[in-house]
Amino acid sequence: MSEEKSLPRFRLKIEYDGRSFVGWQRQDNGLGVQEAIESATKKFCGETVRVQGAGRTDSGVHALGQVAHLDLNKEWPVNVIRDALNAHLRRVPVSILKVSSVEPVFHARFSATSRSYQYRIVNRRAPLTLDAGRAWWVPQPLDTEAMTEAANFLVGKHDFTSFRASECQAKSPVRTLDTLTIERLGDIIEITARARSFLHHQVRNLVGSLTWVGDGKWTPAHIDTVLLSRDRRAGGPTAPADGLYLSAIYYDDESTPDISDRTAC
Amino acid sequence: MSEEKSLPRFRLKIEYDGRSFVGWQRQDNGLGVQEAIESATKKFCGETVRVQGAGRTDSGVHALGQVAHLDLNKEWPVNVIRDALNAHLRRVPVSILKVSSVEPVFHARFSATSRSYQYRIVNRRAPLTLDAGRAWWVPQPLDTEAMTEAANFLVGKHDFTSFRASECQAKSPVRTLDTLTIERLGDIIEITARARSFLHHQVRNLVGSLTWVGDGKWTPAHIDTVLLSRDRRAGGPTAPADGLYLSAIYYDDESTPDISDRTAC
Repeated sequence: MSEEKSLPRFRLKIEYDGRSFVGWQRQDNGLGVQEAIESATKKFCGETVRVQGAGRTDSGVHALGQVAHLDLNKEWPVNVIRDALNAHLRRVPVSILKVSSVEPVFHARFSATSRSYQYRIVNRRAPLTLDAGRAWWVPQPLDTEAMTEAANFLVGKHDFTSFRASECQAKSPVRTLDTLTIERLGDIIEITARARSFLHHQVRNLVGSLTWVGDGKWTPAHIDTVLLSRDRRAGGPTAPADGLYLSAIYYDDESTPDISDRTAC
Repeated sequence: MSEEKSLPRFRLKIEYDGRSFVGWQRQDNGLGVQEAIESATKKFCGETVRVQGAGRTDSGVHALGQVAHLDLNKEWPVNVIRDALNAHLRRVPVSILKVSSVEPVFHARFSATSRSYQYRIVNRRAPLTLDAGRAWWVPQPLDTEAMTEAANFLVGKHDFTSFRASECQAKSPVRTLDTLTIERLGDIIEITARARSFLHHQVRNLVGSLTWVGDGKWTPAHIDTVLLSRDRRAGGPTAPADGLYLSAIYYDDESTPDISDRTAC
């Protein structure tokens, strides 16, 4: 009896421009990032693999630090995999930033201990040029101090039904938001959210509601009323995909998490 | 005899994505930014104006803080001009950030006391996705300390023939480079150059040569040899337009220059 040996497993750190894709996941109506990487792998080594991502991103949502894993039949040098995949991905805006060799117990999705997203708003009267599709243009002035006050009601363990897409398939609407910070640099507002996991559209729905506090439609305390109402109809709008970046996935086994050294701006 | 009164003059601060244009200047082979703004002005108030820019930018070169002036027949409120021009510019990536009323002696080009450019390199092995067309991808590692050492030979008043495009029409190749700094933030290298005026392709030629120092082809001191040779053939390559941003135009009459509150990254 031979002992079955696991295939070599590799972890990928991935950047992409979400505008060219229907989202992370393979779908019938267009190209998913996952599918693009699976096709590149096929071209590289002839293997039909399944690329497992840490988090799904919707159409138009970008990534600076998506993580995925895949199994290959051979212990390729990690930089050979990175360069070969990038060569086969050159026609699409997906870039493999790093490939690491990982234990077969590593699972991009299930081993992840938390995820962080950045949301980028350009807050100015003039329309966007270089940032079009990469940020949300909000022309009315936003008060980031009020937004921060509102954000503090949202941090912690809550029932986030009011900020959850109707099509969300999660069993529970309860999530623990570790951080939700708002920073302004000139006309750029950068919102960072970190949690073990998020509900569908949660970050975009939180951002949409925070802008209603920022422009004075709501008081900061009204966010707490919305949260406690557990009713999506009580919440604000869904911020567009353009400004959202999956920025990092964190794993327990690391002293230094695999965060991107880039920010969205 | 009536005293002739000057027309009201307005100063514009302009941002654009250079990829959609043949450059700042009106040309036969495509749309110039200047022409786009002149057409928008015609649509706004029916007047055929000449928009005079502070600096010409080549095809593909971006601007965060280009300045121009134009004369109108009427003292329009400045924000009306800004919003109307932006409305008529909505199909092209040009945005009027600010409009100010200026004295008739103000001339966007001739009143300018200095100009600053930023050049953005992404220095990493993996190709670009979100930054494609907005930065120069340099995969080989660059030593920014060596580049800074080389840059210090270039600051000051010099004959910049070695870094001047063959088609440059300036009478003299002598320019005074006030600053040339190199900063690294993760895999982004930001080079900032400021001078009263620049020769054609001067910033892109300086950046190209600095990368040859950064990757070890040249010693920092070799830049001085190139400079003193006064021969373009002694210089390094011309860096691509993608990474170049006209970031600010400075005028004497201001305590606070009209610099952009944005950086290229």
